Amino acid sequence: MTTRSMEIICVGKELLIGKTININAQWLARRATSLGLGVQRVTNVGDDVDEISRVVREVIQRHPRFLIITGGLGPTFDDKTLEGLAKALERDLQMNGDALKIVKGKYRKYLEEGQMDKFNLTPPRIKMTKLPKGAKPLFNPVGTAPGVVMKHESITIVALPGVPSEMKAIFEESVAPLLKQFAGDVTYFETSIEATKIMESEASPLIDRVMQDNPHVYIKSHPKGAETIPRIEFHFSTTAESSSVARKRVGKALVQLSEMIQRKDGKVKPAEAEN
Amino acid sequence: MTTRSMEIICVGKELLIGKTININAQWLARRATSLGLGVQRVTNVGDDVDEISRVVREVIQRHPRFLIITGGLGPTFDDKTLEGLAKALERDLQMNGDALKIVKGKYRKYLEEGQMDKFNLTPPRIKMTKLPKGAKPLFNPVGTAPGVVMKHESITIVALPGVPSEMKAIFEESVAPLLKQFAGDVTYFETSIEATKIMESEASPLIDRVMQDNPHVYIKSHPKGAETIPRIEFHFSTTAESSSVARKRVGKALVQLSEMIQRKDGKVKPAEAEN
Repeated sequence: MTTRSMEIICVGKELLIGKTININAQWLARRATSLGLGVQRVTNVGDDVDEISRVVREVIQRHPRFLIITGGLGPTFDDKTLEGLAKALERDLQMNGDALKIVKGKYRKYLEEGQMDKFNLTPPRIKMTKLPKGAKPLFNPVGTAPGVVMKHESITIVALPGVPSEMKAIFEESVAPLLKQFAGDVTYFETSIEATKIMESEASPLIDRVMQDNPHVYIKSHPKGAETIPRIEFHFSTTAESSSVARKRVGKALVQLSEMIQRKDGKVKPAEAEN
Repeated sequence: MTTRSMEIICVGKELLIGKTININAQWLARRATSLGLGVQRVTNVGDDVDEISRVVREVIQRHPRFLIITGGLGPTFDDKTLEGLAKALERDLQMNGDALKIVKGKYRKYLEEGQMDKFNLTPPRIKMTKLPKGAKPLFNPVGTAPGVVMKHESITIVALPGVPSEMKAIFEESVAPLLKQFAGDVTYFETSIEATKIMESEASPLIDRVMQDNPHVYIKSHPKGAETIPRIEFHFSTTAESSSVARKRVGKALVQLSEMIQRKDGKVKPAEAEN
C-alpha cells in the first residue's frame, strides 16, 4: 500500500442483485486517479449495518489515506451507512447541528418551490442529521442528504449519497479539493493504442520488454475483438510529478511498443474511446 | 451469511483507475440472483498476486458457498489470478493435461483459420495451462484461456476470463448448471413501480409498514428524478420455492404500497426498464 492509496466502498443491495451497474465506483476511481491518488480496492456490500461495519473495519486495518463510501445516506430504513460507520468506529450517532441546518434549509426550499405543502421534522428526516460523533456534514448542492467527512487515525473517511448526481456534486465541491491538496502536483496520464494482426500471447513478451525499459509506465493489454478478428487495446499509464514528464514517459513506451508490434507484422492505430 | 451465499472478486487495474465500468460484476450478480443465489459481496482488486491472494483468503474465511473470480486468466504478465489463487490456497501451480489440450486445440483452430501462420507453445501460452493443483479447466467456447473450477473446503471456486463474451459463455455452459443444481427450485422475482408527487422521506414509513406486513419481500426505494421533480422507483424482490409464490408475494406488497402512496396523493405507474 502506498501513502497515496484510497479505497472505495459502495453500499447497496441493488449492486448485489445486479439491478444496477456500479457507475459510481468507476466515476470515483477515475476522478481520484486523475487527481493523482491510487485506488487499491473497491468493495460492494448490501444495506446491512453489520456488513457495512465489518468492511469499514477491514479497510481501516489496511490503512489507506482515504476511504470513500457511497450509498445509504438517505431517509429510508435501508440507508444504513452512517449507522455502520458509527458501529465500526465505536462512536455514537448524534444529531449534528450543521447537518440539521442543511436538511431544514433544503426542506424550506422545497416548501417555497411548492414541492411540498407542509414540513414536519419526521424521524426519516431527522435520520439524515444524525452523524457519527466528530463527523462534519458536506453540503449537498443537488439533493437533501448531506455528505459526511470524518477523520479516523490517519484516514480521511468520506460518505457520499448513492444517487450519482448528488455524489458527483458533493465530490467536486468538497472532496476533490481534499484529494488535490494531498496529492499535490502529481499528475496521472494515460493513453491507448489498438493493434490488429497480432495475438495477445504474441504481444505478451513485447509488453514485458517495454515495461522493463520503462519502469514507471504501466502497460495493460485488453483483448477487444471477436475470436476471428483479434484486436487488442494496449493501455499506457503513469503518475509523475509533472504533466510533461508523464506525457514524455508514456510517449517513449508507446513508440517502442508500436515499433515492436509492427516488426511482428501487427497493425497499430490510436484506440477508440471507450466510456 | 446464508448457505445460499456467493461472493464475486473482479481482478483488474482497469477497474481501479476507472477505465472500465464493472459490467461483469453486474451481469454475474444478476444471473446468480436469478438462479436463486444471494450475492453478499463484490470486491475489485488490481493485478497483484499478493492482493489477489489476500482477498481470496478473506472470502474463504467468510465461507460463502460459491466464489466467482473474473479477470486475470490470459497469457500476459499481468494475468495473475491463478497465481494469486494458488498462493491463497497454498497449492502449487502445475501444468494441467486437460487445460493443455484445450489451449492446443484452440491454437490449432486459429492456425486452420489462417489467423496465425505458425504455432509454438511459448511461455505466455503455457501460462494458461498451469492451474492450481486439484483444479479443473472449463472449456472457453469464445476465447483461448480456459476457465477454472476447484473446491476448497465447502466452497466452490470458479475463475473466469475478464473479457465479457468469454466470461458469459463459460458461465452459461459450465457454471450456471452448478448454481442451478445447488439452488434447486428456488426462484427469484422482482418488479418495480415508480411514484411521483411523493418525497422519499414521506415514503419511508410506508415502506417500513409494507415490509412489516410482508416479511419475505424486500422493498428498496431509489430516487430518480431531479431535485425539482421528485420521482422514486420502488423495487420489490423476493426469493421463494416457486415462481407463483414469489409473484403472489410481490404482488400483494406492491398493491399495498401503491394504495398507501395514492392515499398520500402520490402518483404510481409501472417503472421504466433500466438496464
